[in-house]
Amino acid sequence: LDPAAMAAAHARQATLTKPPGSLGSLEDLGVRLAGLAGTSPPPLPEPAVVAVFAGDHGVHAQAVSPWPQEVTAQMVANFLAGGAVVNAFARQTGAEVVVVDVGVATPLLTDAPTDAASAVGSRRPRLVRANVRRGTGDLSVEAAMTRDEAVAAVEAGIRVAADLVDNGARCLVTGDMGIGNTTPAAALIAAFTGAAAADVTGRGTGIDDETHGRKVGIVQRALALHRPDPGDPVGVLAAVGGLEHAALAGFVLGGAARRVPVILDGVIADSAALAAAALAPDAVGAMVAGHRSAEPGASVALRHLGLEPLVDLGLRLGEGTGAVLAWPIVASAARVLHDVATFDSAGVAEK
Amino acid sequence: LDPAAMAAAHARQATLTKPPGSLGSLEDLGVRLAGLAGTSPPPLPEPAVVAVFAGDHGVHAQAVSPWPQEVTAQMVANFLAGGAVVNAFARQTGAEVVVVDVGVATPLLTDAPTDAASAVGSRRPRLVRANVRRGTGDLSVEAAMTRDEAVAAVEAGIRVAADLVDNGARCLVTGDMGIGNTTPAAALIAAFTGAAAADVTGRGTGIDDETHGRKVGIVQRALALHRPDPGDPVGVLAAVGGLEHAALAGFVLGGAARRVPVILDGVIADSAALAAAALAPDAVGAMVAGHRSAEPGASVALRHLGLEPLVDLGLRLGEGTGAVLAWPIVASAARVLHDVATFDSAGVAEK
Repeated sequence: LDPAAMAAAHARQATLTKPPGSLGSLEDLGVRLAGLAGTSPPPLPEPAVVAVFAGDHGVHAQAVSPWPQEVTAQMVANFLAGGAVVNAFARQTGAEVVVVDVGVATPLLTDAPTDAASAVGSRRPRLVRANVRRGTGDLSVEAAMTRDEAVAAVEAGIRVAADLVDNGARCLVTGDMGIGNTTPAAALIAAFTGAAAADVTGRGTGIDDETHGRKVGIVQRALALHRPDPGDPVGVLAAVGGLEHAALAGFVLGGAARRVPVILDGVIADSAALAAAALAPDAVGAMVAGHRSAEPGASVALRHLGLEPLVDLGLRLGEGTGAVLAWPIVASAARVLHDVATFDSAGVAEK
Repeated sequence: LDPAAMAAAHARQATLTKPPGSLGSLEDLGVRLAGLAGTSPPPLPEPAVVAVFAGDHGVHAQAVSPWPQEVTAQMVANFLAGGAVVNAFARQTGAEVVVVDVGVATPLLTDAPTDAASAVGSRRPRLVRANVRRGTGDLSVEAAMTRDEAVAAVEAGIRVAADLVDNGARCLVTGDMGIGNTTPAAALIAAFTGAAAADVTGRGTGIDDETHGRKVGIVQRALALHRPDPGDPVGVLAAVGGLEHAALAGFVLGGAARRVPVILDGVIADSAALAAAALAPDAVGAMVAGHRSAEPGASVALRHLGLEPLVDLGLRLGEGTGAVLAWPIVASAARVLHDVATFDSAGVAEK
């Protein structure tokens, strides 16, 4: 974060026609966005694109989710048809949707456009085909993927971010889809933060006590089996991660490298953000925590990253839904520094 | 709220391609909006118009605010020129702005258009001239206004709401401007909820400990002097209210009468909402708490009304800023019930 731009944004906040500090956390957010861009006022973070990274999970065999694995591919089709909640929220707020197949088990049959670049400015969701592997291995008995596969997934995410920014996107929004993907998210959060499995493993899309108990046990078993080393982030992703988690880590890194803000959605993005921060600590400067997921691991991860979420509505859907709702707030924080008159220019007396 | 429409919306939530309950408080909000409209899915709450009700306060003479009283009129000019924070947020989210002079002390010199109806669909803020009185009396030594003036201000608010809805608005957003107006808000909240003055009196736009202590004392003195009876809401408004508070109470009632949602901003709107609820308890069904103001009285008022705020960002600016930020979230909650595919229609398996 550029200290001169942050100082300029901070000084500007004090000249605008509002009581000092009266915009609460949005003032800090505006200053951070200026620091990220290296200029004050910071560029408006629009257009925004939600990239929904989709993958499947070998650990699904351990019955950690009540949903059949085919739902991942079915929901990808639903995203491409515009029928999911993230599509509705994106339509309402003016964001665009891209779906990235980085690890779906079922081959996708679709006539959706596949040019990632053309998603910017388009109302029709695009599919990016970047499948590294048709679903991970079962992390409770083997590595989720090889190191090479983890690197390929990270690189896929970096590439999507770069393509979107090169084609005009000025805000990246994380989304995810993957039946069973809160289990690797919990394992990643435990590995990177040192928290206990029981403190970071939640109920995902809604499971009963028995399934939850089994899920905690599986996360514990995976950690004991692989002993992931947080100093080796690629190794952690390969051992207990998911393909969409690895790609999201790359997506965050790609946004940070272009100095474009990346709004984190829920627990999947938060776990990926820990991996990104472990790979490149400066990447935290590009992260904006969109909302507080109902998953306990999300709060643990955000605390570790030093991020406060903007919205807290009890959402636990994923897809990018919470982050899309936060986007107008992020844009508003930047817009204040552009649009609001100063006391001098508006002829308003100061106290 | 219409129970059949609410039941239909609730049933519809369960058929949509998302885990049951995964949208948290937005699911309840969608159901409430259906109940308000009497139809499921509920109409999309757009276009939205922020009405910024402006007034001055005799209690300003007691030095409850560090800002000069002229700032009220200067900020009205700033709103009309599009230079205030609420304008920036409205521009970002696509809401429109109307300014209502219901009690500004200083005559307003402006060439702004004054036709309230034409605000809908316009990018240029309009001024509604509805001045009932050039500022209230000092509630610490006399009634803030007469009963007739309080009724006239309530009626002005009802009229603005009706005009906006008649001209197409489908969501009303409360805004306010008035140097010193958190003092009458605190007195109103104490009067309607029975809370102690010290528990509902905050620091407004930012005052020091000494001024805050004086402000608590003034609220206590006003309550002791007038002994406002919560069973007589017009009497309470006349004794310890403000012209914009009374007009906002009418604005809420006007929205509720047309079955259009009214998003409450901060402590001023919350205090007015208590008056509206005292006049017509059913009006609570139209209220959506936009955000949790940093003012302590706001939380007391919302608890009394049984409302949970959508956004909590530490804002304490007023103008409607918090409510405007909440509007895309309200619209998204309604849009889910329109746009999202069902499990059947999307061919997605259920658990």
